[in-house]
Amino acid sequence: MGDRIGFIGLGIMGKPMARNLLSAGFQVTVHSRSPGPVDELVSGGATRAGAPREVAASSDVTITMLPDTADVEQVLVRPGGVLEGVSDGSLVIDMSSIDPGSTREMSAAFASKGVAMLDAPVSGGEKGAVDAALSIMVGGDDAAFARARPVFEALGKNIVHVGQSGAGQVCKACNQLVVAATIEAVAEALLLAERSGVDAAKVREALLGGFAASKILEVHGQRMLDRAFDPGFRVRLHRKDARIVQHAATATATPIPSFTAVIAQLQKAVEAGDSDRDHSALYAELVREARDHG
Amino acid sequence: MGDRIGFIGLGIMGKPMARNLLSAGFQVTVHSRSPGPVDELVSGGATRAGAPREVAASSDVTITMLPDTADVEQVLVRPGGVLEGVSDGSLVIDMSSIDPGSTREMSAAFASKGVAMLDAPVSGGEKGAVDAALSIMVGGDDAAFARARPVFEALGKNIVHVGQSGAGQVCKACNQLVVAATIEAVAEALLLAERSGVDAAKVREALLGGFAASKILEVHGQRMLDRAFDPGFRVRLHRKDARIVQHAATATATPIPSFTAVIAQLQKAVEAGDSDRDHSALYAELVREARDHG
Repeated sequence: MGDRIGFIGLGIMGKPMARNLLSAGFQVTVHSRSPGPVDELVSGGATRAGAPREVAASSDVTITMLPDTADVEQVLVRPGGVLEGVSDGSLVIDMSSIDPGSTREMSAAFASKGVAMLDAPVSGGEKGAVDAALSIMVGGDDAAFARARPVFEALGKNIVHVGQSGAGQVCKACNQLVVAATIEAVAEALLLAERSGVDAAKVREALLGGFAASKILEVHGQRMLDRAFDPGFRVRLHRKDARIVQHAATATATPIPSFTAVIAQLQKAVEAGDSDRDHSALYAELVREARDHG
Repeated sequence: MGDRIGFIGLGIMGKPMARNLLSAGFQVTVHSRSPGPVDELVSGGATRAGAPREVAASSDVTITMLPDTADVEQVLVRPGGVLEGVSDGSLVIDMSSIDPGSTREMSAAFASKGVAMLDAPVSGGEKGAVDAALSIMVGGDDAAFARARPVFEALGKNIVHVGQSGAGQVCKACNQLVVAATIEAVAEALLLAERSGVDAAKVREALLGGFAASKILEVHGQRMLDRAFDPGFRVRLHRKDARIVQHAATATATPIPSFTAVIAQLQKAVEAGDSDRDHSALYAELVREARDHG
């Protein structure tokens, strides 16, 4: 637990995660684009750093929690980035959800400087971050995973070492594929019930008793019945994750015929102005289509 | 429990269901195209009938369990069918999985003769039928449902009265939509993991801990990892049910963009010779596509 931790990216997820690391007794150095969250963390006991390179220079473990692949590349491997500040034997953990291919390239760049890098994307959302109850999907070597475990345990509950570098990001991509596809399937089914004059709540109840049962049918199915599309996990973030899935599928020549249709629905939902609604608003997109073309 | 029951269609599902009705103490008259199952049931205490009309004439409750919409129409409303044999006050229960629109038409035809008809498709497969543990989704009026309840209780466990005539079939269509779409999503995700060099078993395990969790990921995900595609529920039957979904969606102008892609996958699996494998063989179809076009 003696590790000094650097934390870069204090957004909706990063801020409560950094706070949980402070609560767990770690020394934490923080950096973020917006000054407000940095001030908050500093008043809670963290140290401020001016740039990613400086965070790395004063930390044994540097964590990034950023919106997208380009942001992580900027902070880790571009001029002024973490790669310039790390010292031999330190550890980098990217907890953002980004492209597995880019992850492997960055991991190789760090390895050439004697620094291990783990990919450790999470699921569980803001609530999971605040409650230190995130699911964490980890890619990287065993020694790095063992070293990072106390850090992960301060942040989450369901911690799975999936495989080597990139495996955490691949796992997250698979998760986002299954979640969005299941939401879309439930939306199509409940709308079919409704437009057939059948009580969709009864259909949800009946389906929960059999092979159609899922966490999504339970939670997001209820959201659809209630038209409760306040986030939750935003459509635009799932659209971003869907691009990562698409890119990973293209890179590995993996056919994803049904998810390709789901990506189109996410895109249409974004274009219709549902970016900041919960991803269960894929139901609202279908309702619009039924109204416009029905 | 004094009702005399007629049972038409002694296939993989119908035979054990009729047997469970005998075990529950009902008088059962049976009819089926193939003589073997009829002989079996007769040796178990059932009475043989020569035609659907005769079954209806000697029964208070006539049940059909047949492969497809056309078979049910043939047996119920064509010449020599149940409609010609029923008497005022009797009850018809179709437990096949067929088109909701056709169901409503047949129900109206029976109503004009003073006969109630319920649609009561099931899920749970051969094992559910043998164990009297089927899920039963029922459409029709309250009085008919109440009268049929002792019959359903001899056949299944999770008995839901979904709504008026056709609602049971709509519910079953929704079930089959969600089940096939979830199987396809899980197949795409696990293949993406595998082709990314990541252990798909670890991915399944990680995903079961979060919002991607489903009965399908648990059961059919494991089948995919094991390449265990012995049925189970056959691809060709799910292809048939998918046509019912498609027809119901067209009839109600309901958009089903992702399920449309799933239907295409089921069709390709049939054409590739996987008709009699379990529907989790949608995974095998993706593997073929990756091999042929990758």
